[in-house]
Amino acid sequence: MSAPVAQLDRAADYESAGYVFKSRRARPNSVQIVATHFIWEMRRSCERKSMHITDKTRFFMTEALKEAEKAFAEDEVPIGAVAVYKNQIIGRGHNRTEALQDPTAHAEILAITAAANALNTWRLTDVEIYTTIEPCIMCAGALVLARVKKIVFGARDEKFGGCGSVFNIVNEKKLNHQIEVVEGVLGNDAVLLMKEFFKKKRNRRG
Amino acid sequence: MSAPVAQLDRAADYESAGYVFKSRRARPNSVQIVATHFIWEMRRSCERKSMHITDKTRFFMTEALKEAEKAFAEDEVPIGAVAVYKNQIIGRGHNRTEALQDPTAHAEILAITAAANALNTWRLTDVEIYTTIEPCIMCAGALVLARVKKIVFGARDEKFGGCGSVFNIVNEKKLNHQIEVVEGVLGNDAVLLMKEFFKKKRNRRG
Repeated sequence: MSAPVAQLDRAADYESAGYVFKSRRARPNSVQIVATHFIWEMRRSCERKSMHITDKTRFFMTEALKEAEKAFAEDEVPIGAVAVYKNQIIGRGHNRTEALQDPTAHAEILAITAAANALNTWRLTDVEIYTTIEPCIMCAGALVLARVKKIVFGARDEKFGGCGSVFNIVNEKKLNHQIEVVEGVLGNDAVLLMKEFFKKKRNRRG
Repeated sequence: MSAPVAQLDRAADYESAGYVFKSRRARPNSVQIVATHFIWEMRRSCERKSMHITDKTRFFMTEALKEAEKAFAEDEVPIGAVAVYKNQIIGRGHNRTEALQDPTAHAEILAITAAANALNTWRLTDVEIYTTIEPCIMCAGALVLARVKKIVFGARDEKFGGCGSVFNIVNEKKLNHQIEVVEGVLGNDAVLLMKEFFKKKRNRRG
């Protein structure tokens, strides 16, 4: 089966946004050594942005990345999220748009639905969301509706991001709730996973 | 049980947005006659905005209003939606936030999920959504993700609307899809239902 049009669109989108991706699993050659150097520069940049990453933040983002890896294994755009309440994961989600053929089955939507189910309330006022890629416009809207306390994400989504990239929904004063946002946490790992996914998609189509 | 805080917030929001509501079922007195006159003015205003309502549009919006009435009967914020493909309803939804304790269980989200299920694809490129109130930011994002062709809605949501009121997500050129929007279709009926709901909530609390 050929790659879904939307996913290839996103691949093109990510490239046009200036990401220079490289597979983590490919063997190095001279071009790749240059690319690797670039990636280390990106990693340093990410780390500069998030100098004060705590062990807690790193732990939960690593769990979100595990969810993203599950999506990757299932041939879905590899984005993962976890919902955290009182330092415990109460909801997990990874992108399942293709498996469920549901445009709303994003990682964050699934994670907050699971969290609401766990707490038996739709008001997630003390819940923090860790997600590998900036929540999209739909997910950002859902996070405001759910009154989520804090969003921690890895890398920006320049084409559909709702936390500053295209719109800043989570910090709009006209709305009745604003959310604290921390970005750049293990962002390099999130981006590399995306790059590897879209490269695989293109190769399959080619 | 007292009314959920969020619903009362929305009641206050709707009033602050300048709506002058009146129950359709109350008996008239002199104050209500003035209010009725005001409502007829609103209705005329709505009808001016949507002079070219076809029988088809009126039919599907009436079906969306039936969904909103179901929400009302279930003590949910009364918003309803239907998804239409080739002049047939393939998905229905009404707000079920309280019943499911899920912040994402809005009418439009449920309608497009049902439509995607009916067509077995998340790409709803030839689907039209009829909804009683302007889609919120989350739902507007979902409708763009689903590549919906057209949105027809009744009344604006000045506090959380994503089709022009707070953000204009469905016609943002930076995104990879824009949606045709028609507003003001049977908007008066949608507003009256909302007003009646919030009045009932306030009375119950008082």
